[in-house]
Amino acid sequence: MKAPTDVLVYAGSESDATMLYASGFLAGDPFIFLRVGGRSMLVMSDLELGRARDESKVDEVVPYSAVEKKLKGKDGAKRVSRSEVIARVLADHGVAAVSVPDNFPLGLAVALRKQGVQAVPSASLFPERAVKTPGEVAAIEAVQRATEEATDEALKLLRRSKPRGSKLVVGGETVTSELLKGVIHRALMDRECAATRTIVAGGDQACDPHCTGTGPVAPDRSIVMDIFPRSTRTYYHADMSRTVVRGKASPALVKLFKDVQTAQEAGIAKVKPGADGKSIHEETQKLFKEMGYATEPRGGKMVGYFHGLGHGVGLDVHESPWLTSGGTPLPEHSVVTVEPGLYYPGLGGVRLEDMVLVTSGGCRNLTRYPKELVV
Amino acid sequence: MKAPTDVLVYAGSESDATMLYASGFLAGDPFIFLRVGGRSMLVMSDLELGRARDESKVDEVVPYSAVEKKLKGKDGAKRVSRSEVIARVLADHGVAAVSVPDNFPLGLAVALRKQGVQAVPSASLFPERAVKTPGEVAAIEAVQRATEEATDEALKLLRRSKPRGSKLVVGGETVTSELLKGVIHRALMDRECAATRTIVAGGDQACDPHCTGTGPVAPDRSIVMDIFPRSTRTYYHADMSRTVVRGKASPALVKLFKDVQTAQEAGIAKVKPGADGKSIHEETQKLFKEMGYATEPRGGKMVGYFHGLGHGVGLDVHESPWLTSGGTPLPEHSVVTVEPGLYYPGLGGVRLEDMVLVTSGGCRNLTRYPKELVV
Repeated sequence: MKAPTDVLVYAGSESDATMLYASGFLAGDPFIFLRVGGRSMLVMSDLELGRARDESKVDEVVPYSAVEKKLKGKDGAKRVSRSEVIARVLADHGVAAVSVPDNFPLGLAVALRKQGVQAVPSASLFPERAVKTPGEVAAIEAVQRATEEATDEALKLLRRSKPRGSKLVVGGETVTSELLKGVIHRALMDRECAATRTIVAGGDQACDPHCTGTGPVAPDRSIVMDIFPRSTRTYYHADMSRTVVRGKASPALVKLFKDVQTAQEAGIAKVKPGADGKSIHEETQKLFKEMGYATEPRGGKMVGYFHGLGHGVGLDVHESPWLTSGGTPLPEHSVVTVEPGLYYPGLGGVRLEDMVLVTSGGCRNLTRYPKELVV
Repeated sequence: MKAPTDVLVYAGSESDATMLYASGFLAGDPFIFLRVGGRSMLVMSDLELGRARDESKVDEVVPYSAVEKKLKGKDGAKRVSRSEVIARVLADHGVAAVSVPDNFPLGLAVALRKQGVQAVPSASLFPERAVKTPGEVAAIEAVQRATEEATDEALKLLRRSKPRGSKLVVGGETVTSELLKGVIHRALMDRECAATRTIVAGGDQACDPHCTGTGPVAPDRSIVMDIFPRSTRTYYHADMSRTVVRGKASPALVKLFKDVQTAQEAGIAKVKPGADGKSIHEETQKLFKEMGYATEPRGGKMVGYFHGLGHGVGLDVHESPWLTSGGTPLPEHSVVTVEPGLYYPGLGGVRLEDMVLVTSGGCRNLTRYPKELVV
């Protein structure tokens, strides 16, 4: 079936970036967005009616209760379902089929079907989301500045710390992942940003790329810091990773760091409009292999380079376009990360992540923070 | 069709409480949960494999890449989709139909259908989620204590403020919604909790129940504070609303506050195992009407009592059971809010929200914070 031109989205915009993009309206609980005949509307509960009219960017805000009332009949006793309300609004506009996002709730799709409405999932309902406007780029850059300042606060603390046995100590206190994350989160909050799942992981913890890190961080071992906050005002994200050592880095760790940096620079050099995200990722895999780095399972965990090279950044921290095995060509004005990493328990983990804007000539690095291994 | 006994969930657990409940594993990006023949498993990317084995509560963690490899064939060139991977795991267990949550992504359901797997949506896949264990109640109470302490920090600041014209001033600074929310968010962060969309809304802003509030708060007018953080450690929520006035409250505002308090006490008195959430909500509507409060649209916005009386609280801040027009009987050991409110622009908004645990004898109020209008 051809994708219907009219669109239905049902989600809360705080956790669903498609809805936030479509409606320009922030709400935690799910609500209804429709684009019918090119005209956008929200169908809102009484609770959100006033705020939706003031804050959303749609053409019209329809009260849910008004549609419900029409369906209830004279005595008002009939219980009216959400799917009936949606179907009624669509029927009033002569619409029987709508395109919906891939993540549209199946339960609602089944209920709509019973009301005569067909919901057709689409993987790219708002493909223009990948192409950032200057305003969106500015919003992302603002979050990136906050991310760099927060990283700097954490590194200042780390630089003040002294080794004591297998730990680092500052002002009598042991330096832990939690302590460093606390510093980062406070600095972000002061800048109207919020982060969850921030990674400050040292030693072998850094070899599990999504381990967020707990307990004391050791001297002379690599610490991966991966920070991806969202603005609590604009809801745009930034994303940056740095790897540092407090103390001495072994020659093998220095080499690991330099090789990741080389791979990152090679990756960034390949980013330009139309470049294939899949190819850039696969060339990074090839480069690491040529450098002699094995990627394989060892003891039930993967070692080497075993994640994607990058992803788009916007209202979602991970969004299209992708620099992965499922990657596609990169559009001009998209914002993507380039973040190669190598992970070997015993030796350590290294990841370096910058965020770049695809420009006509290639790309512009939105990340300014230096890459220094030993701090 | 009868609901299949085997279960499939596909979501990121940071934004999907069903997945968090099912897997006990925190991850931002979507992953695959299966319950097949009573045995639970995750199918995880290499990136999350180690952490999933260490942290999740499932019986088995299957590497996504291993299933992918089986499907790729000898040359490894074939592109394998997510739905093929899921279908293969299910086929290996002789499963052709699964129950999925109502919010299961339609796009994946359609793709699975092409692989011979039927996904049947279910509105109550884990009905036991409404019934809290003692450990869950303790987690919710811990967040509630943090919520109360954070509220207290904000009220301490408000109590120190002095009126200056239409504003309140403390230490030379104008008291704004943003300032008070900052105090609350810092206090929550210090207690391993995080809140978004916190409401500190004064004057007529308080009459739009989901307006989060901006700018200076005025003396002598009601300020609604609604705080619903989640623990960044346990991911359980709490939820509390208080309404305060700094300065003098008009007799009409004092009456509004007392009447909301009366309705709240009447509502709480009706909470017990088996009590109908719908009835308790409707009795509150009736009570306000009898008190002479009109609920109706005025100037494009609703006034009166026009939201639900309450909702369950747990891994979601809003979850089953509901005390609304769609409410159902309340199970023992569920945790629900009771939060009547009245809103009249000009006069002001008042909402009082406590969180109670349904016990054999009725309910236990988990909220300890006092209700004082004038501070």
